[in-house]
Amino acid sequence: MTAKVRPTILITNDDGYQAQGIQFLASIMRELGDIVVVAPDSARSGAGCSITPTCPVSIQRIDETTYACSGTPVDCVKIALEKILPCKPDLVVSGINHGDNASISLHYSGTVGAVLEACMKGVPAIGYSLRTHKKECDFAPYAEVVIEWAKRVLHDGLPEDTCLNINFPEVKKLAGAKICRMARGMWHTEWLDAGTDEDGKNIYTLTGTFNNLEPDADDTDYWAIDHDMAAITPLKLDMTDYLTLERMSGER
Amino acid sequence: MTAKVRPTILITNDDGYQAQGIQFLASIMRELGDIVVVAPDSARSGAGCSITPTCPVSIQRIDETTYACSGTPVDCVKIALEKILPCKPDLVVSGINHGDNASISLHYSGTVGAVLEACMKGVPAIGYSLRTHKKECDFAPYAEVVIEWAKRVLHDGLPEDTCLNINFPEVKKLAGAKICRMARGMWHTEWLDAGTDEDGKNIYTLTGTFNNLEPDADDTDYWAIDHDMAAITPLKLDMTDYLTLERMSGER
Repeated sequence: MTAKVRPTILITNDDGYQAQGIQFLASIMRELGDIVVVAPDSARSGAGCSITPTCPVSIQRIDETTYACSGTPVDCVKIALEKILPCKPDLVVSGINHGDNASISLHYSGTVGAVLEACMKGVPAIGYSLRTHKKECDFAPYAEVVIEWAKRVLHDGLPEDTCLNINFPEVKKLAGAKICRMARGMWHTEWLDAGTDEDGKNIYTLTGTFNNLEPDADDTDYWAIDHDMAAITPLKLDMTDYLTLERMSGER
Repeated sequence: MTAKVRPTILITNDDGYQAQGIQFLASIMRELGDIVVVAPDSARSGAGCSITPTCPVSIQRIDETTYACSGTPVDCVKIALEKILPCKPDLVVSGINHGDNASISLHYSGTVGAVLEACMKGVPAIGYSLRTHKKECDFAPYAEVVIEWAKRVLHDGLPEDTCLNINFPEVKKLAGAKICRMARGMWHTEWLDAGTDEDGKNIYTLTGTFNNLEPDADDTDYWAIDHDMAAITPLKLDMTDYLTLERMSGER
């Protein structure tokens, strides 16, 4: 047996394999290990943890280390682990997403969905997102934090059933990085009237405005991003509300 | 001003407005309040918390209280609250899903996604799912628990940012109902080779086998269902792993 010298790193996203964010992430990860990119064949914004149970999913090899998948980000991770990678990877990284996935927005995020899926399979995983919606942006200011946390997780691992959600502000230079919790937030005014379709049905286009419900709390991801810092948030798979569980159990 | 006599209940699901489970749920909820059904126009299994940001979503009125939506279960809740209901509902119920959404499977669930969305909007919400994949099944054994918890939540509300995930076993008579946590679990062997498509790409069909990683733990949703009981699990929106956050903050 030969010792494994370089770690295997699986890279995915929800913006599609051609997005600038994943190409930047791949270029960085190449320094740290042997990479394989398995990402959607086109953008899958808002995919959350969705999967494709109702139709077959296709895989197309694009180049030596890149595969395009017709499914969701979660499908990409599932199919990479079972059908593409020669061994279980040492790390899954997802992103860098064009758009932040802080506060409750992470529930809708395919970038985070892929990270949760890797976590469910026992692989340490990190999602990276940038508060921008530009297709072309400068990811260089985030390289140092991206590498630092990838190295750290490769070295130390993460607790069982825990993964990382990292969000960046759009800045020329980060003011630091902060370990923080999810802010409480709410989306509102989410639908634009778009008239009627050819069948006369009312149609609407999804948009929305986000309100941070605790703008003064300095321990949240939103606060960190608002203050030009990277927000590092550990997430857990177990969504059980233990406080409520205890209270409800006592009442019965 | 007249006092509000009957509560308003929004009903949705991920199997589509014509599914047997939602029709049973609607028939029960009619006893408790004024109902409005806003559900996908066809099955959206595995939709999780996904949304439809890239194309317009249509709404079709089917009858006086039923609307079919071209979007995901989360879209249904968003559009019902903003564009269809005359007032904020007192309760959102989702299901009854054909298939359980216990353990980690809840992350993939559109039924649970709709419940989380209602919770994000500050509306008490309950998801109901049945461990079956039959299209036609007898939901009568679950009516009592469905009603009990809907009444309880209508009366007492739920803590902020908390919602309920209720799963049923397929039985003639429930052995009880148990307040419990999410079991740790893992899906494996998830892809069937389905040959190649017309472009020569490899295609795979999603399937899979679920392993309960703690079959002996009697405080989990899986254990309850395995023992013929309804599993009542409070979920919270905040996925922050506070233990890890504390440890990581200490290390810096």
